[in-house]
Amino acid sequence: MIDLRPVFQVIGALLCVLAMAMVGPALLDYRDNHAEWRVFAVSSGLTLFAGLLLVLGTHTGSHRRSLRQTFLATVFGWTVPGLFAALPFIYGPLQMDFTDAVFEAVSGLTSTGATVIHGLDALPRGLLLWRVLLNWLGGLGVIAMAVAVLPDLAIGGMQMFRLEVPGPAERATSRTRRIALVIVAVYAGLTGLLALALWVAGMTGFEALANAMSTLSTGGFSTSDASIGHFDNRAVELVVMVGMVLGGLPFLLFFQMSQGNPRAWTKDGQLRWYFGLMALGCLGVSAWLTASKGLAPWDALRSGSFTAISVMTGTGLFTLEYGNWGGLPAAILLFLAFVGGCAGSTSGGVKVFRFQFLFADALVQLRRLLRPHAVLIPSFNRRPIPEDVLASVMGFLFVYALAFAMLSMALAFLGLDFTTAISGAASALANLGPGLGGEIGPGSTYAALPDTAKWLLALGMVFGRLEMFPMLVLFVPAFWRQ
Amino acid sequence: MIDLRPVFQVIGALLCVLAMAMVGPALLDYRDNHAEWRVFAVSSGLTLFAGLLLVLGTHTGSHRRSLRQTFLATVFGWTVPGLFAALPFIYGPLQMDFTDAVFEAVSGLTSTGATVIHGLDALPRGLLLWRVLLNWLGGLGVIAMAVAVLPDLAIGGMQMFRLEVPGPAERATSRTRRIALVIVAVYAGLTGLLALALWVAGMTGFEALANAMSTLSTGGFSTSDASIGHFDNRAVELVVMVGMVLGGLPFLLFFQMSQGNPRAWTKDGQLRWYFGLMALGCLGVSAWLTASKGLAPWDALRSGSFTAISVMTGTGLFTLEYGNWGGLPAAILLFLAFVGGCAGSTSGGVKVFRFQFLFADALVQLRRLLRPHAVLIPSFNRRPIPEDVLASVMGFLFVYALAFAMLSMALAFLGLDFTTAISGAASALANLGPGLGGEIGPGSTYAALPDTAKWLLALGMVFGRLEMFPMLVLFVPAFWRQ
Ligand SMILES: [K+]
Ligand SMILES: [K+]
Repeated sequence: MIDLRPVFQVIGALLCVLAMAMVGPALLDYRDNHAEWRVFAVSSGLTLFAGLLLVLGTHTGSHRRSLRQTFLATVFGWTVPGLFAALPFIYGPLQMDFTDAVFEAVSGLTSTGATVIHGLDALPRGLLLWRVLLNWLGGLGVIAMAVAVLPDLAIGGMQMFRLEVPGPAERATSRTRRIALVIVAVYAGLTGLLALALWVAGMTGFEALANAMSTLSTGGFSTSDASIGHFDNRAVELVVMVGMVLGGLPFLLFFQMSQGNPRAWTKDGQLRWYFGLMALGCLGVSAWLTASKGLAPWDALRSGSFTAISVMTGTGLFTLEYGNWGGLPAAILLFLAFVGGCAGSTSGGVKVFRFQFLFADALVQLRRLLRPHAVLIPSFNRRPIPEDVLASVMGFLFVYALAFAMLSMALAFLGLDFTTAISGAASALANLGPGLGGEIGPGSTYAALPDTAKWLLALGMVFGRLEMFPMLVLFVPAFWRQ
Repeated sequence: MIDLRPVFQVIGALLCVLAMAMVGPALLDYRDNHAEWRVFAVSSGLTLFAGLLLVLGTHTGSHRRSLRQTFLATVFGWTVPGLFAALPFIYGPLQMDFTDAVFEAVSGLTSTGATVIHGLDALPRGLLLWRVLLNWLGGLGVIAMAVAVLPDLAIGGMQMFRLEVPGPAERATSRTRRIALVIVAVYAGLTGLLALALWVAGMTGFEALANAMSTLSTGGFSTSDASIGHFDNRAVELVVMVGMVLGGLPFLLFFQMSQGNPRAWTKDGQLRWYFGLMALGCLGVSAWLTASKGLAPWDALRSGSFTAISVMTGTGLFTLEYGNWGGLPAAILLFLAFVGGCAGSTSGGVKVFRFQFLFADALVQLRRLLRPHAVLIPSFNRRPIPEDVLASVMGFLFVYALAFAMLSMALAFLGLDFTTAISGAASALANLGPGLGGEIGPGSTYAALPDTAKWLLALGMVFGRLEMFPMLVLFVPAFWRQ
């Protein structure tokens, strides 16, 4: 039997954080004279109670976790808080049913941003704040997981991003604490800067803060049904674009920069691919907008770039409803959604570095065809990519493709049309948010889908967010054997 | 400078075979009193002349080919004959333009079976025979290439299918000759049996032979615009289903059986996956047909199985026009098209064995997460899969996915709608034939597409047929350096 106490410790701590976050919307609604501040206050109390119960009731002296305990903590640390986060949706003014509430909460925490709520503009601000808080906390959680957990678990090639062991004087826990501090500071600082810039650009203070939080976390919940299109403001769009690009960056580089290593930025080949593919996507969509929709070149570049950046970084904010643009933009956007952002960012998707590994390997394969006996090794950032990392990435891609195929088919089986099924599956796995087509495209909501589809999509979001393997490993019988 | 003589030898020999094949349609049209027999006669003469010129003009004493020469012979051995095979389409009764003629010829030779011709039922039989002859020769060529060339070139994991070295008494060339003999005999014999069965089932002699040839080769050209649906005959459909399944089998096993090793069939894990996935596909499509189209269970099973088998084996024959069935069947069929048949079959697609390698690797990855230091090796047919084979398969999949994405986007860029672009790209790369949707779905033709789209699709067919890498390697600068 696995000792579950360290797992409960983690879940409990996360619930306490969630409970504290609920205080924000409670205060905001109280100040706005919205009676639903009570809902947040009670939800916060309930969540805090559950959290403290778990933390105090399972106290152990040790801080060390076994591999199995880490996997369990990862999976349940992402799912259990989703249930508590749903409380304000159930008991708040929207009175959502259980399925919708959990869908919205999980979509928020995984920073997917797919919504079942129509009529955002008329909502009390507390609930709007709660949604972007979920995005924001989820984004931070993903970075933390990508930096501190996934490399040690050797998930999908992330072992290439294991931090070099520091000097022997420093203990591992203090190093982890230092990294966490820097990343939280950078994340909060960037959010503040974005909010300031959005406020200067013309948003109200609340809008600026809320949209900054959902932008940097690439979560994509917004304060209006029309998303960023609501503001119709070039300066706002520019700031949001910068924010989304920032959200897709490898946050570990900020830490390395803080350690007096600013050259880490220029040495990371991920960035060249990230910006290169992004530029191609922006050009492709913009060119199509000029050619097919007759937009003036600058307008096309403005709207096309916003769309391409939003989809590639997996943010899902939008200024134009791109769901029914058809053939070419759909293909480009689906491709960008699969590519995603950098390792250790808030973006989802396969992620740029995996494509780089695969590309490096394909090039080596090609050269090896001509020189069958030569020793050729693919490399990344001038370091050789070990065979087991390649195998790891290959396993990741296979499972990703399989999950995509199965989720699409399951959604189609539930009666969704082809475009909705395919784009919905891709969007959930990549934590993007909107799909394509009229039903779940930008500007629509997931409300009309059957409940089973909502549960499957929510599962897909968590599956994608956790890079899949931590969930799969729970189904290996050996996991439960001692 | 690479010595091109051995390359010209191969191309010349293939042209001579093509010239001889043209005699068939010439004789048939002569017997039918169709004046176009002259077109075939003249085309045959021209092709023979070119072939002999190449063979005799580049005679070398040696039969050995370097790696580079083999790559060149593979690529140009598949493309140059396509140009000569187009002659009867250009100068025959259809007077097709150059693009359409080459599209039809390349589609035939790669056993893709995508057509630009509407009105098959009214065509002279010579031209119908020519089309299925292209399918048939192409299918044979693919088996030969998969057995004799690709394993030695180490393309996409095919090195796992290198034949064990026989006793020292036997020379490699005589072994190759023996394998070729068995495979040609089996291929021709099975075609004959299928033709006989189709004739018994009610087809005319000509229809039986023509459809047998395009069935076993999984080419999919038929004698009617309505494909197999034209016959509306259960026995015919059953025979064609068996034929398509046969076409997707690993033909090397027939050779091993002929060597007194019938147990090779039971030992090959490919077959379990091949039949297992096929059964799932048949059930899925049939269930959908009952549930959504209201077909009686047996009718649904009949039509659903035919469709699923046709798509998975990459044949492209059809009894129902499945192009607009929508969501679920579209997703299932796209998935089956990507999976494809067995190694060394006439089927295209990624092929079952690559999915098995990936699955075996993913399982090992999963177990390794729990035991990071254990030595775990994926295996196939009880043999360990070497790391370089896995890397090879991974390179293959990456290039396949990239080619699919790029071809889809290029087609969408040319103005094709989403479904047409995606399904057309998938169909060309997998050598399937029909796409989805109204424009290129079964029952429609590729005639209305822009010329550039036709050339891109034809390129995609060759690219997929050659398992991609032999074409790519020509673009590596080192290929041309001495
Ligand atoms: K998102
Ligand atoms: K075919």
